[in-house]
Amino acid sequence: MKRIALDVMGGDLGIQATVPGMIRYIMKSNGNGIAFDLFGKKSEIDAVLAEYPKVDEKICQIHDTGDNVIQCDQKPAIAVRNGKGTSMFEAIAFVADGHADAVVSSGNTGAYMALSKCLIGSIENIDRPALVGLLPNVSGSTVMLDLGANTDCTSTKLIQFALMGHAVASVLLSLECPRIGLLNIGTERTKGTKPLEEAYEFLESFGDINFSGFVEGTDITSGVVDVVVSDGFSGNISLKTMEGTFKYIMHVLMGGFSSSLAAKFGYIFCKKVFRILKSKIDPRINNGAPLVGLKKVSVKSHGNSDYIGFSNAISVAVNLVNASFIEKVKKSIQQATQKEETWRML
Amino acid sequence: MKRIALDVMGGDLGIQATVPGMIRYIMKSNGNGIAFDLFGKKSEIDAVLAEYPKVDEKICQIHDTGDNVIQCDQKPAIAVRNGKGTSMFEAIAFVADGHADAVVSSGNTGAYMALSKCLIGSIENIDRPALVGLLPNVSGSTVMLDLGANTDCTSTKLIQFALMGHAVASVLLSLECPRIGLLNIGTERTKGTKPLEEAYEFLESFGDINFSGFVEGTDITSGVVDVVVSDGFSGNISLKTMEGTFKYIMHVLMGGFSSSLAAKFGYIFCKKVFRILKSKIDPRINNGAPLVGLKKVSVKSHGNSDYIGFSNAISVAVNLVNASFIEKVKKSIQQATQKEETWRML
Repeated sequence: MKRIALDVMGGDLGIQATVPGMIRYIMKSNGNGIAFDLFGKKSEIDAVLAEYPKVDEKICQIHDTGDNVIQCDQKPAIAVRNGKGTSMFEAIAFVADGHADAVVSSGNTGAYMALSKCLIGSIENIDRPALVGLLPNVSGSTVMLDLGANTDCTSTKLIQFALMGHAVASVLLSLECPRIGLLNIGTERTKGTKPLEEAYEFLESFGDINFSGFVEGTDITSGVVDVVVSDGFSGNISLKTMEGTFKYIMHVLMGGFSSSLAAKFGYIFCKKVFRILKSKIDPRINNGAPLVGLKKVSVKSHGNSDYIGFSNAISVAVNLVNASFIEKVKKSIQQATQKEETWRML
Repeated sequence: MKRIALDVMGGDLGIQATVPGMIRYIMKSNGNGIAFDLFGKKSEIDAVLAEYPKVDEKICQIHDTGDNVIQCDQKPAIAVRNGKGTSMFEAIAFVADGHADAVVSSGNTGAYMALSKCLIGSIENIDRPALVGLLPNVSGSTVMLDLGANTDCTSTKLIQFALMGHAVASVLLSLECPRIGLLNIGTERTKGTKPLEEAYEFLESFGDINFSGFVEGTDITSGVVDVVVSDGFSGNISLKTMEGTFKYIMHVLMGGFSSSLAAKFGYIFCKKVFRILKSKIDPRINNGAPLVGLKKVSVKSHGNSDYIGFSNAISVAVNLVNASFIEKVKKSIQQATQKEETWRML
């Protein structure tokens, strides 16, 4: 039986989102052979659990961490130094010690990344883990990384992201040969920064992945590639620009629909179209960003996610565990590292 | 009488967009006291002009540059070295020599920037000009810079962008005290790169502009600031992500509307709402990106803009000229430079 450790105290809604999220996952997936280890304040967890049909104790074990939590404004370094005893620290440590297969948290992103890296550790030859997102595109989904874990990037890091993205897309998008693009300000080979140039050179000659060259911001949603590789700074800004643009368009449309009787009437007939759009861009649906490059599966759920979002983040963790994701990433990175000559040339 | 030099050969549609664009501007603005200098192949310009009611020769002078054009894949350095005699080079040189007040082109962006910088020259204390865009937000428009002219940025450049953005917003958005934000991966002061940190420190203490601190990608369209300052790499990726997201949403919506009879029926009643949305996100409406930091007004029109887009780019140039924009930028930069102590501290 696979086990998932949950930091139930993290996120804006805390236990009110995480515990119902777990229940939703169990009900939707019929258990799926997964057991959960809940780290948080036992009395509060029990109170929420009491609202639902009794969950089998064997598949849901509570580890009482009392009121000890990592605050949302806690600095990562402080979280690492003083975090022992908190729900997030203990959930990650539990996985690091081999008692569970994956960890999920909606807590402080910086602290979660620092603790995951520190306690679980990186795969050999990976400098730092990357935060990976699944974004909508016209023909399905785009895997994008890094979304903010690494603000400045060397070519080696970009190459590692490309290999990790390859592994993520093969598991989460079920693709044998995902197309991988490097995010740049133009598709011409001559454009961009030195690290991008060097990463292009290596990935082009690498051969073991399906490298499509440079892509632009428009290509994240165009579906021309399955994986978009970016430094964490631009990746984060790009992701948030997309979120802002969604909000802006919904704002204009909803304003328009309430502006006239005809539009209101028309809206009734095309409500379904908007439901489809909302479902595609609903951040809860795509919730669950794996921190890739670690020795265990670690998934970051959005800080403001509700129970639906949190249950989807659990799904991501379960999928990665069941697909032996960590082994796949290790193999990809190992293959690349073996091509030492090319690697050293960088 | 103010004069605008036009590179009529630039852009995907060339003369077919630029000359009708000028005619549209003249007809819409009733001349507006502006004369035009057209640089391009005279025989072709004459052929297009013949399709329209005769334009007064006094307000429209043709400078025949024959078949000499800067190709769209021309490297900027080569354009500077060998560009003499081409429509773009001669239009910019004409302005640089003081014969006209502004130049507009839809041609090769890199070449246009390099030639503008080389022939017109930068304002004192400006390292490199920035490409400025006007983007839609929930309450109006956001001025954003740099959109790709400077891929890596020091704190000094970011500060210069902030001051130039202040001047652009005061003219194009008619704001006395535009709110200025620095684009970062979080709003907390502790986040971001070294140049961002340093720029924050200076702008906070500067006092002469309304500095709102760090903003995120979501804030470009949220309207919390009037000016978003970014390095050219992230700015370009952000802009194109926005374009891609618009396209993606229109794709999903249009697919939905044609998927059922009810939705088709509903669409008829809310067509107007989509017309409003399309008009707000239509790149032709916001066409015309000023290259700011030069001694003269230089406006870049989108490479694929049609005559409507080109006429709007002309409008931007005219507005900047009429508002003594260059003087305003010079004054802003001068004030900042005078605060020598702080400036030197960077």
